[in-house]
Amino acid sequence: MSSELTTRLAKLGLRLPDVSPPRGAYVPAVHHGSLVHVAGQVPMADGELVATGKVGQDVTPEEAYALSRRCALAALAAAASVAGQEGLAGVVKVVGYVASADGFTGQPGVVDGASDLFLAVFGEAGRHARSAVGVAELPLGAPVEIEVVFAASG
Amino acid sequence: MSSELTTRLAKLGLRLPDVSPPRGAYVPAVHHGSLVHVAGQVPMADGELVATGKVGQDVTPEEAYALSRRCALAALAAAASVAGQEGLAGVVKVVGYVASADGFTGQPGVVDGASDLFLAVFGEAGRHARSAVGVAELPLGAPVEIEVVFAASG
Amino acid sequence: MSSELTTRLAKLGLRLPDVSPPRGAYVPAVHHGSLVHVAGQVPMADGELVATGKVGQDVTPEEAYALSRRCALAALAAAASVAGQEGLAGVVKVVGYVASADGFTGQPGVVDGASDLFLAVFGEAGRHARSAVGVAELPLGAPVEIEVVFAASG
Repeated sequence: MSSELTTRLAKLGLRLPDVSPPRGAYVPAVHHGSLVHVAGQVPMADGELVATGKVGQDVTPEEAYALSRRCALAALAAAASVAGQEGLAGVVKVVGYVASADGFTGQPGVVDGASDLFLAVFGEAGRHARSAVGVAELPLGAPVEIEVVFAASG
Repeated sequence: MSSELTTRLAKLGLRLPDVSPPRGAYVPAVHHGSLVHVAGQVPMADGELVATGKVGQDVTPEEAYALSRRCALAALAAAASVAGQEGLAGVVKVVGYVASADGFTGQPGVVDGASDLFLAVFGEAGRHARSAVGVAELPLGAPVEIEVVFAASG
Repeated sequence: MSSELTTRLAKLGLRLPDVSPPRGAYVPAVHHGSLVHVAGQVPMADGELVATGKVGQDVTPEEAYALSRRCALAALAAAASVAGQEGLAGVVKVVGYVASADGFTGQPGVVDGASDLFLAVFGEAGRHARSAVGVAELPLGAPVEIEVVFAASG
């Protein structure tokens, strides 16, 4: 990505958020070999969840799309905090966990919020393998949690 | 695997399905380093889910075993589409998400459909680490979703 | 880790359990490249689950913390069985699946049982990226399932 990352984010009207402190005995991201594994991100602002509840009941799919995008940006910040902005070459894998109301099966559209962000930020190198699943409950009542594996550069 | 893969599949009476187009801003598989990460696969045929509903309620465990096998074959096709059939050496990891009726705890038997396929196709190199979990909902109402990490050759 | 692992476990009053045989066509762990992927571990003793049910209903968060710790120790044993005790350098990633009663959102505190163990055993190298999610059902009715990726040495 080299120094393009900040520039590209600025062009998208985005900036990296602060990295949320982990809620337990773990770290936001680990750089090992050519991969950067990032902890699952829930949608935070100023140390608080920006929404809670289940998608398809308390949270609309459109709202959840925006929350996924926010989580993806947080994941990017976490990865950059260990590998450096120039150390990130693209995205390998995303798992999107969506706290789903009974019968809600639109998880892919929700997780697109993360996938679309990575495509916008990294271009083709942002395209990744992905799983989207609907889960019963997420930490603190978060509607979505996004887990990412980035490719480290060179 | 070298050119054995097609031959071995033929001996098992199998052929690789077409790769399903992703339902979002992602790709079927990413080859990075010595790993091929494949997007979560749901059981499709001709662009449609072959079954919907929860295992232990709408879908029997036996049916779900067959669906898992179908997903595994689709994952193999997706991996081969980026690494080539000769580029796949074996299987490292499988995560099987099973949309589970309340009280259904037979996820391992369901995900065996994928594991048994990989063992048949790759022999010992097909043995993998695995997690099987029961989730609330899956995309489009799929009963199972299978996520795979393959080992790339050379 | 070198030969410190046994010593450090002993100091913590711990020893590696026997590796549970897989419940299907998979293996406890796969060493590929510089990573050791371990199969999802449920809390076993003498071949049986030590508890069943949902956290926040049948199992307290405190009990579930202890179960997560037990799963983490089992994951360590599984990893050591393929890479050797001296072959493990630290922990890269943990996914903690918590079978959650409706409304239970304390998954991070439960999965801390695993994270705290890895920190105690490996020191700083035990700090990992982590996701904690609440799922509907787990194999055999297990309250928690812990999946780990270790870093291999050398």
